[in-house]
Parts: sequence; structure tokens; C-alpha cells
Amino acid sequence: MADKNEHRKDHDRLAEDRLMGLARRLYSQFVDGDVPSVNMPTRTKNNLEYSEKSDVWVYGDRESERSAKTVKGAFQLLKTSHVIDFLVKNHLASNRGSTLRELYYISENWGIGKFREQPESDRLIEDLEVITSLQREYFHMRPEEDGATMFGPIRIQEETKRGNRIIHCQEDVGESGYQIPFNVENIDFIDHDAKFIIAIETGGMYARLIENGFDEEYNAILVHLKGQPARSTRRLIKRMNEELGIPVVVFTDGDPWSYRIYASVAYGAIKTAHLSEFMATPAAKFVGVQPSDIVEYELSTDKLTDKDVDALRSELTDPRFDTDYWKEQIKLQLEIKKKAEQQAFAGKGLDFVTKTYLPNRLSDMGVI
Amino acid sequence: MADKNEHRKDHDRLAEDRLMGLARRLYSQFVDGDVPSVNMPTRTKNNLEYSEKSDVWVYGDRESERSAKTVKGAFQLLKTSHVIDFLVKNHLASNRGSTLRELYYISENWGIGKFREQPESDRLIEDLEVITSLQREYFHMRPEEDGATMFGPIRIQEETKRGNRIIHCQEDVGESGYQIPFNVENIDFIDHDAKFIIAIETGGMYARLIENGFDEEYNAILVHLKGQPARSTRRLIKRMNEELGIPVVVFTDGDPWSYRIYASVAYGAIKTAHLSEFMATPAAKFVGVQPSDIVEYELSTDKLTDKDVDALRSELTDPRFDTDYWKEQIKLQLEIKKKAEQQAFAGKGLDFVTKTYLPNRLSDMGVI
Repeated sequence: MADKNEHRKDHDRLAEDRLMGLARRLYSQFVDGDVPSVNMPTRTKNNLEYSEKSDVWVYGDRESERSAKTVKGAFQLLKTSHVIDFLVKNHLASNRGSTLRELYYISENWGIGKFREQPESDRLIEDLEVITSLQREYFHMRPEEDGATMFGPIRIQEETKRGNRIIHCQEDVGESGYQIPFNVENIDFIDHDAKFIIAIETGGMYARLIENGFDEEYNAILVHLKGQPARSTRRLIKRMNEELGIPVVVFTDGDPWSYRIYASVAYGAIKTAHLSEFMATPAAKFVGVQPSDIVEYELSTDKLTDKDVDALRSELTDPRFDTDYWKEQIKLQLEIKKKAEQQAFAGKGLDFVTKTYLPNRLSDMGVI
Repeated sequence: MADKNEHRKDHDRLAEDRLMGLARRLYSQFVDGDVPSVNMPTRTKNNLEYSEKSDVWVYGDRESERSAKTVKGAFQLLKTSHVIDFLVKNHLASNRGSTLRELYYISENWGIGKFREQPESDRLIEDLEVITSLQREYFHMRPEEDGATMFGPIRIQEETKRGNRIIHCQEDVGESGYQIPFNVENIDFIDHDAKFIIAIETGGMYARLIENGFDEEYNAILVHLKGQPARSTRRLIKRMNEELGIPVVVFTDGDPWSYRIYASVAYGAIKTAHLSEFMATPAAKFVGVQPSDIVEYELSTDKLTDKDVDALRSELTDPRFDTDYWKEQIKLQLEIKKKAEQQAFAGKGLDFVTKTYLPNRLSDMGVI
């Protein structure tokens, strides 16, 4: 296992090279008497393509230009230069980090280069991610939202500023599990006994599986997604799947918004399409709650709202759900006009989900 | 330190006694030929009183009666009996737990006693909390929302179903800290070196204080509240304050919603007034961001919205803010018509908040 400090230094060097590369390009343009400009893929919905090859959402061929020939473009390049300067000196050289929000405030010191509003600052960081092909974690940019918690038969080493921490995600953690940090590039996998990873939408179901000992009985790593999963969560699931070869299944409520949670784990999210190859786990499979489960197990349900129906219809034309399986399931749901929560299995007893539903479903899927 | 298993068994015994006590009361009424009924404090806003004595919100003298003389009341008592039966047999006797949502689904098995909707189930559990004077954690009822994370010089022992875990909240945790579990009654404090606890509203500021080593430099326990704090968070803060004698300060954004976050830590929340004495920390002090800080430090601000203004005006007549200090601060904010985030200190440099603002403020407050 390589020395983690080496990994961190490698990442910093790579980030610095690419950021300085961009700075040098702009500088050369000035020196050559050209109007400075930068091209990058357009990040709008109509430039999204579903990549058959990698099974993830990526940007297509349309490009946008940031150019100093317009006042707006000149401001953007000015701010870009300030940000590169800040990231290289205050983050990479000093081993510090900031949130997107802090960056917005930091720009107050840049005179006319100050950000007018938070989203402007966020978009500029996304620009840099796209241009450098590096996640913002490489620039030490932190998100506000939390990562998930994780509980299962895996031992990890997390490099922190205070030294390395070796943590076994059953033996060394409290009942809520291991809190995934902002930057999962600082995690090394030491060993594990896992047969599969199950990513779970709700806290109640995550707690149910822990209480029922599901992780022990089936050698499963449980990941509590906490709704739409944060980048760090998606990235860590991908790393465990690809570096350790552990299969991934996703268990959510049975409604169109939850199917999208599955899709963001498996295929990427539209907002972060430039990073799909870093964060999507195309091999991840959907467990349920399937519409066919609602029928088969006669789960307690709620009626679909108009928004639910619209979302389902929209999924019928969404390439991420363009399989016979999903079309069948979505059409069934539109017929029965019902949705169900994963915790509805409690209606059949506290043990039903771990003694009957999941073993049946995972066995049918060939996971156990 | 008492054996934690003994604590847990004591709690279970207490919960069982009180729940069965209620069941016995109802039974005796049947036997005596009386129409079964239960009285409890009315849980509406106009029955809330500010208790001068304990500095927390409690319920007043108005009572509501649940009585089988009406069909509605009979249903309520029927469901209450089912819930007591379930809690005593499936939770306490079996060392299991459930979420409020699972309880709602479990009621499907109670024939006409089934809950018609989630809020009905939630209210019944609150009824039981009020009648038994015990937090629902004693019945092993779990919430959906997460507790906070904590980072600092304290060693705790958490009793889990898998055995006891001893965790030092700097040395044994990752960079995100220790994830506070659902039920903090299972935590024992082993030792600590803390001079104070600082409860922090935003993830970015929590991460800032960790990165800047504020916990080490000032011997502070950092608690990331994650917005409106969960019960477990408030309860743990209270326990650390009262059992270990560690002072508590609260650091939030500078707007009326954030002042309410402070108030829920210090005085209790209206929704859980029956539990204020378990969860409120009246000794907790407010650090900032104060309106006077916005002026003094010339922080980057946003304009107050109409809702902000209404909230501030409402706080001028809220007994929890009925001090000269708060009246002065709120009036100042209404004058300047601005609000500021805590992360706005980043505008003065990444170290300003830990090298200047907090040391000054905490020194003025007599905390350091």
C-alpha cells in the first residue's frame, strides 16, 4: 500500500500543474498579443449525451468560449485568474481548504474581481473542474453537504491533518457508523470481508439493517445515502466497486424521485456530468422498492401525485431508464397509480425486510 | 462508572413501569365500570409557558382529555393500547427499536386500530412522552434525522448492540468527527480536556475550525449542529454541560432563523416543550454572528427579506429573547436591514475567525 502522503502530494502536484497550465495559456495569449480566451464544453441540458461506451452522462461537442473580447468574458477570465492564484497559493501550497461559500466571501478582496453572487463562484469552480478534468476536491474545495455514513466489514485508513486513522467500520465505530469525510481521496482501503455493498436511501432502513445484523449475516457494507447522495458518497461507492471489485446494489423508496437517486449513483447526475467517470458506478443494480414489489407484497401505499406522474412519464423518455426492465416497471406504476416507502415492509414485521424481502430479491439478482 | 448495561436495563425497566402503569389505569377504569380516559397537558401554542424557574419552555395548566365517551377518543385509546403492547413486547422485552415511520406501518396489523396517517402515529408517541414523562428514546423509538457530528478532546464510550465502543473524538475519528447516535443515553463520558463546547450551525464553519486546529488550541469540543439540531444533539450538549460542567456557546449565521437555532439549544423548541427539561441547556450562550458584529467587522451581507423582518419583529415579543441584549441586537438589525453568514469571516482571510473573531468574542464573554 503506497504511502498516503505520497498520494496526497501527487494529487496536489497534478492539480497545480493543470491550474498553472491554464494560467500559462492565458499568459501566453497576452504575450502573443492574442485576446485571451478559454474553450470548454457547454454545460447545458441540450449538450448532454449518454455515453454508450462508459454508461454514464457526459458532455457533448458543443463548446462555450470565455473570451476577453467582451466585458463579461474579461471579467470571467479576471476572476478565473484570481481563483487559480488563491487555490495554488492558499490551498495547495499551504495544505488548506475552503468551502464554495468561503470562496465567494474571499473574493471581496479582489477589487473588481469580486463575485456578485454565490452561484457565480460555484460556476467558476465547475469551469475549472471541466477544464482541468479534475474534481474540485483536488483543489481542496469542500462542499457544505455531508457525506453518508457507512457500516460494514471493511477496514479503511483515512489520512487527516492530524495523522492517519485506521477505522474498522463495524468494530471501531458507534451505532451510526463511519462518517464519510469531505474528500474520499484521502481514504485507503486496508482489508474487507464484504460480498456486496447496499446503498440505502433512508436513515430508518439503514438503522433497521444494522439492528437486524444484516451486515454481519450477509457480509454487506451498508451505506446510508441520506437522500440524493453527496459527491463524496458516490465517489467512495465507485472506488469500493472498482478498486475492490465489490458489487453494489441500491435500495430506495418506490417512487420516481428515488429511482433518480439510483440513477445518480449508477449513471451520474446532470449537474456533474463532467465528473461522471469519477463518480458514477455503472455496475450498480437497483433492488427496490420496485412497483412489482408493491403488487407482490401488497405494501401499504400512497397515491401518486400529479408531479409523481409527470416524473414517471419523463423517465419513460430518459435514456438512463431506457431498458425493458425500467419501462415495464414504470408502466406498471402508472397503472397502479401508487408509490410505497421502503420502511413499509415494517407492516409485515420488523424482520421481514432482512429475513424475506432482501434475501429473495438479492438471490434473484444473483448477488447472494 | 456504572456498568452501562445496568443503565440500559434501568431505563427499560422505568419505561416498562410507566407504560404498563398507563395500561393498568385504563384496565382499572374498565373493571370499575368507568369510561376509560386519560388527561394530559394540551400541546398547543397557547398553552406554552416560559418557566422562569428552569428557563425553558414548558406546558401550562390546560389539559386535554382522551376519553372513550366519544368515538374519536375511543379510537385513540385503542391505538394507545396497541402501541403500549408493541413497545413493551417488541421493543423493551426484545431489545429492539423502530422509527416513527415503521410504527405507522406496523399499525396495519391492528385492524381498526390502524393509523390513518403518519402524523397521527407521531402525535400518539408524543402523548406517551408527556404522560410518562420519558423521552421516546426510552421506548426505543428512533428518529429519521441524523444527529450532529462532534470533534474535540473528549473520550466517550458508546454502548451498541455489538458491544461497547470507546472513542476519543480527536484521536479515533476521521476528519468529519464522531457521528452522534440516535440514542445518546447509551453514551458514557470517560474523560475530557475541554474548556468549553462550541455548537456550530454550518458544515463549512465546523470544517474551518477543525482545519485551523481551533479545538486543539482552545481545548474546545466542536459540535456541528447541521441547522436546526436534532434531539440527540441537544440532549448530548445538555448532558456534557450538566454532567461534566463544560460551558456551552453557540455560533450561527446572523439572521433570525439562526437565532432560533440558538434558542432551541438554550431554551427548548415549542414542539417538544414537554421535554425541555431533558434537552435544553439554559446556560448556553450566544456567540454570534451578532448584528453588532456585522457593523463592527463590516461583514459582507445580504438584505433582510420581508420574512426576515417579520421573524425579527416576532422575536421582539418572544419571551426567549426578552433581554436587553437581544432587544438591542434585534433593533440594530432592523435598522441596518442586513444579515450575514458566519462564513462571511472568510472575506478577512481563512484564519480570521479563529485568530481574531472567536478569541475576542469568547474573551469578552469570559469563556476563555
